[in-house]
Amino acid sequence: MKTLIIYYHPYEGSYCNAILGAVKTGLKKGKHACKVIDLDTDGFDPVMRGKDLKAFGEAGRGDDILTTDVDPIVLRYKKRLEWAERIVMIFPIWWMTMPAMMKGFIDKVIFPGVAYDMEGGRLRSRLKSLRQVTVISTMNTPADIYRDMFGNSLEGSLIKGTFNQIGIHDVEWISLNMVKQSGQEVRKMWLEELEEKFI
Amino acid sequence: MKTLIIYYHPYEGSYCNAILGAVKTGLKKGKHACKVIDLDTDGFDPVMRGKDLKAFGEAGRGDDILTTDVDPIVLRYKKRLEWAERIVMIFPIWWMTMPAMMKGFIDKVIFPGVAYDMEGGRLRSRLKSLRQVTVISTMNTPADIYRDMFGNSLEGSLIKGTFNQIGIHDVEWISLNMVKQSGQEVRKMWLEELEEKFI
Repeated sequence: MKTLIIYYHPYEGSYCNAILGAVKTGLKKGKHACKVIDLDTDGFDPVMRGKDLKAFGEAGRGDDILTTDVDPIVLRYKKRLEWAERIVMIFPIWWMTMPAMMKGFIDKVIFPGVAYDMEGGRLRSRLKSLRQVTVISTMNTPADIYRDMFGNSLEGSLIKGTFNQIGIHDVEWISLNMVKQSGQEVRKMWLEELEEKFI
Repeated sequence: MKTLIIYYHPYEGSYCNAILGAVKTGLKKGKHACKVIDLDTDGFDPVMRGKDLKAFGEAGRGDDILTTDVDPIVLRYKKRLEWAERIVMIFPIWWMTMPAMMKGFIDKVIFPGVAYDMEGGRLRSRLKSLRQVTVISTMNTPADIYRDMFGNSLEGSLIKGTFNQIGIHDVEWISLNMVKQSGQEVRKMWLEELEEKFI
């Protein structure tokens, strides 16, 4: 299964980086083709500039985005999205939702003419190969508090508010909670489980 | 009331920019001192880099952040936050939550040693003058759908997950919904109401 990993964490000693390693090892063992978008290493600019917004207004009529006004890296990411049968996102939760870098990937790449088209007021995915999305996030908040106090904020914006909106419904969310407070043994077990899952 | 506006929209013809104008006019009529952080014009970089993250790990012992490792603009914003008795945030909702630029303001400026300290595992605001926060957001989704389907995602991350977490509880959220679909008259009325509110 052709798998595109979309990864963000600025520190290579992070647990997210260990997750990235485990997922890649599992995919390799399973002989799945794998590409990685590492937003920090790529120096991705997550900001929607005036010219991006202008292109947004002009897009979405079923044509490919070919305008030179769009950040060129978005067009490179578009090719990888079109290739992917599965997307795996890996990032930390900060202040109860995505870091700016990952939100900017959504703002600028889940874009009309890139990832979806507008059809009669509805959004429709252009990613014809894509069958499945897995979101892996880390946080130090317990799962029940994140749900009851903070309304599973990530689910509302990323899963329901983004993927489901463009018509991608097979979205799985693996939330690793209390990461700092968990012992070495638990963190090791999570990595083994993730490796196993992606074989 | 000393008011700090934190503003993001990359298009000057936007309704958000009209809101910014109305709020500023109201504040001027009311003779309130006002400063504006315009993230797009300032060229703010919303990305948490490795060195920012390193400073994060070292901060939060009650000392001021004075490290040269932190993005210098954060130290300038710190002074304005310390001055403010009221914060007004103005931005559009994209994909059911903050744009990357505004999220990056939270990631990098609501920072230990800048906006809060860690005290025995709890977060405590350093912004001694700050009494009140007003969040003004625009979206094209109806209010009931945003609440029932997307769990008021912004509330979980920004209001409860950020301001309340650092101990700021007087937070008001003015959500302007269905902005595109509303007529000129309604949009004009909202601006008049906002101007009046800030006098």
